[in-house]
Amino acid sequence: MTGWTVRCQQDVTYRISGSADVFAPGNDALAEAAGIRAGTTSLLVLDRTVDALYGKRIDSYFAGRGARSVKYTLDPGERVKTADSLLDIARAADQAGIKRRSEPIIAIGGGVVTDLAGLVASLYRRGTPFVRVPTTLIGLVDAAIGAKTAINHNGHKNRLGTYFPASHTLLDPVFLRTLPARHVRNGIAEIVKIAVMKDAGLFALVEADCADLVDARVATTHGQEIIERSVTAMLGELETNLWEHELKRVADFGHTFSPHLEMCAGADLLHGEAVAVDMALCCAVAHARGLLDDESLRRILTLLQRIGLPTEHRACTSAMLAGALADTVRHRDGHQHLPLPTGIGSATFVEDVTSAEISAALATVRRLQPVAASR
Amino acid sequence: MTGWTVRCQQDVTYRISGSADVFAPGNDALAEAAGIRAGTTSLLVLDRTVDALYGKRIDSYFAGRGARSVKYTLDPGERVKTADSLLDIARAADQAGIKRRSEPIIAIGGGVVTDLAGLVASLYRRGTPFVRVPTTLIGLVDAAIGAKTAINHNGHKNRLGTYFPASHTLLDPVFLRTLPARHVRNGIAEIVKIAVMKDAGLFALVEADCADLVDARVATTHGQEIIERSVTAMLGELETNLWEHELKRVADFGHTFSPHLEMCAGADLLHGEAVAVDMALCCAVAHARGLLDDESLRRILTLLQRIGLPTEHRACTSAMLAGALADTVRHRDGHQHLPLPTGIGSATFVEDVTSAEISAALATVRRLQPVAASR
Ligand SMILES: NC(=O)c1ccc[n+]([C@@H]2O[C@H](COP(=O)([O-])OP(=O)(O)OC[C@H]3O[C@@H](n4cnc5c(N)ncnc54)[C@H](O)[C@@H]3O)[C@@H](O)[C@H]2O)c1
Ligand SMILES: NC(=O)c1ccc[n+]([C@@H]2O[C@H](COP(=O)([O-])OP(=O)(O)OC[C@H]3O[C@@H](n4cnc5c(N)ncnc54)[C@H](O)[C@@H]3O)[C@@H](O)[C@H]2O)c1
Ligand SMILES: [Zn+2]
Ligand SMILES: [Zn+2]
Repeated sequence: MTGWTVRCQQDVTYRISGSADVFAPGNDALAEAAGIRAGTTSLLVLDRTVDALYGKRIDSYFAGRGARSVKYTLDPGERVKTADSLLDIARAADQAGIKRRSEPIIAIGGGVVTDLAGLVASLYRRGTPFVRVPTTLIGLVDAAIGAKTAINHNGHKNRLGTYFPASHTLLDPVFLRTLPARHVRNGIAEIVKIAVMKDAGLFALVEADCADLVDARVATTHGQEIIERSVTAMLGELETNLWEHELKRVADFGHTFSPHLEMCAGADLLHGEAVAVDMALCCAVAHARGLLDDESLRRILTLLQRIGLPTEHRACTSAMLAGALADTVRHRDGHQHLPLPTGIGSATFVEDVTSAEISAALATVRRLQPVAASR
Repeated sequence: MTGWTVRCQQDVTYRISGSADVFAPGNDALAEAAGIRAGTTSLLVLDRTVDALYGKRIDSYFAGRGARSVKYTLDPGERVKTADSLLDIARAADQAGIKRRSEPIIAIGGGVVTDLAGLVASLYRRGTPFVRVPTTLIGLVDAAIGAKTAINHNGHKNRLGTYFPASHTLLDPVFLRTLPARHVRNGIAEIVKIAVMKDAGLFALVEADCADLVDARVATTHGQEIIERSVTAMLGELETNLWEHELKRVADFGHTFSPHLEMCAGADLLHGEAVAVDMALCCAVAHARGLLDDESLRRILTLLQRIGLPTEHRACTSAMLAGALADTVRHRDGHQHLPLPTGIGSATFVEDVTSAEISAALATVRRLQPVAASR
């Protein structure tokens, strides 16, 4: 029998734009982005915390336009990022009767909600329109601007997912006003991640504002610039590698040991907190290898600690870290591809980190911890 | 805040090739396609019927190459095409410890197995290598050559899925020797579908061989040509519309009412049988509109009946068909986009079929049924 080669090309274009106070009655940004008009139906996915804070305002926004909105609410937090939630949201989409190409699923919330609703949108009828309104800092600078969707499965973080960016994402920093301080810190961890890897200027801005960045909910002197530079730096990575054909990713800094740590530590560590612990460990590895100088190591650890992020956790044993690395190596197709800083704003990848180095780095971080914290 | 537009392009290339007796020890086609070598692990997904028939031969194939194969077996049939199976296969992938980019999931079976395993492959770590070995006729000419993956959900056929073609698909007609006659007929329905829409010559070949096409398991005078032309015609549709940005699809002929019918009729109707019922109904609609002449209507209905495919089913009530159409209209974003034949080998789309027309067509098919069947 003959053979056939099928060649296809897909263009993916998506839009991210700032819009203050998205649900103000007169703000057309979301209506335009999501095609909300009289007679249309949208399925909104949000958690109960966001619903309690913004639900009424959201309802009025749709009602004011004569549009139907069906709300699906979840318990807040990582624990709902499951296949059960996914399947239940799909049932809600059936019930709402949304049309395949013109009636959207709109995720309003943090990374849990946008990752989960994004996966539903990508699977439902093999793709349904999707719009994101991030309401956490991690959402604004990271989770809601890329293409990755996910649920946790079988004890593994983000084990099932797709690459499916929302056609439109609206960034509204006004939501940060109600965000608990711990979740602001959580988002700053991802900002520090991208700053250390790619943008020394961004790192300096975070350092400059770090005294009140958390309390002011990023509404500081350089707050807007910090968010914008983070988004620009992240998108620079994504645009050339949206489907992760390249597995050497600087955005994976802090994401080598943390997926496993986050699952082990349970409610004890948020995503960004686990990322901070992982970054501290990797900085110590880089320092021991002579890749990162004393001053840069000190600046990074100090910044993390001044923000109030953890740099170590008792779940980090040598055995646990070895297991975490082994799974990540499978994820990176048999390679470590470990992103390490070579200074602030620059990076390299290493392939041969040993268990001994990791144990030594752990000891270093623990030793440096109280010193830096006392500054 | 500023705005960003992210533009990315994805090239998708995949390969389909014929290979007789895929699991013969000396046949390198699969080993090359799936990267099977000493020391590698593959996760095989197959159903118990295929395992009973070919399991030993499959095991030897891997053992002979010093390669590890982990087998995940399912009950045969549409009923396993569920989220539960999907999640369980993902657990098996965890347990097998396959590497992200180099150790494949290999689906060996009919459309149920390739659709289901394909969805797992697309979701597992957001994409893992995937190879298909179709073992049914519907697989060879349709299910295993495109990009669509799926599970059924909430009473809806293929409600959740992705577009994720296998990098390699091996077409081996030798598997058809053990395929029950009913499943051969089932596959011929999809061949008739594409022939009526696009290829009058293919239709004539099926007519010419139809006396022994089923008994000879497509190993007839024109059997190989029938399979090859079907694949070529199907791929012609897919290559230009892999992600179904265009919702007017001639390959949807027979797939307007059938998804709902197939779910309603349960074990009573196979996929291709439901497609045959739908095609007969749509031909009658086309005939009543003057789009399809008497002779073409007669040829199509006669061929379906000579193959032994049903052209009507007692679950087809006017109410059921109206409900089926309404859901399909949602699936086609508010449009009927109903593909109808305008002769054998040519087609058009209509947007305004009424319930009255559908009821009349149902009566026509029922009236013509015994006449044609008696030929
Ligand atoms: N897709 C990606 O590329 C990507 C990137 C980074 C993180 N993530 C994922 O994102 C998740 C973490 O994100 P997250 O911290 O935003 O999760 P989250 O959705 O759980 O939100 C954190 C908490 O903040 C609350 N909240 C949200 N908005 C609020 C507001 N405006 N005011 C008050 N409370 C509010 C929520 O109810 C929740 O309790 C993880 O699951 C992680 O894997 C994904
Ligand atoms: N993805 C697509 O584009 C596409 C296209 C058409 C159909 N489909 C899907 O495919 C499914 C129907 O396909 P199918 O009929 O191949 O389903 P199937 O996988 O259930 O196979 C049919 C039966 O044949 C048996 N079988 C398979 N190979 C055999 C062999 N060589 N010898 C003996 N028995 C064998 C199986 O055990 C099963 O009982 C439906 O779920 C349909 O939705 C998908
Ligand atoms: Zn992260
Ligand atoms: Zn079909």
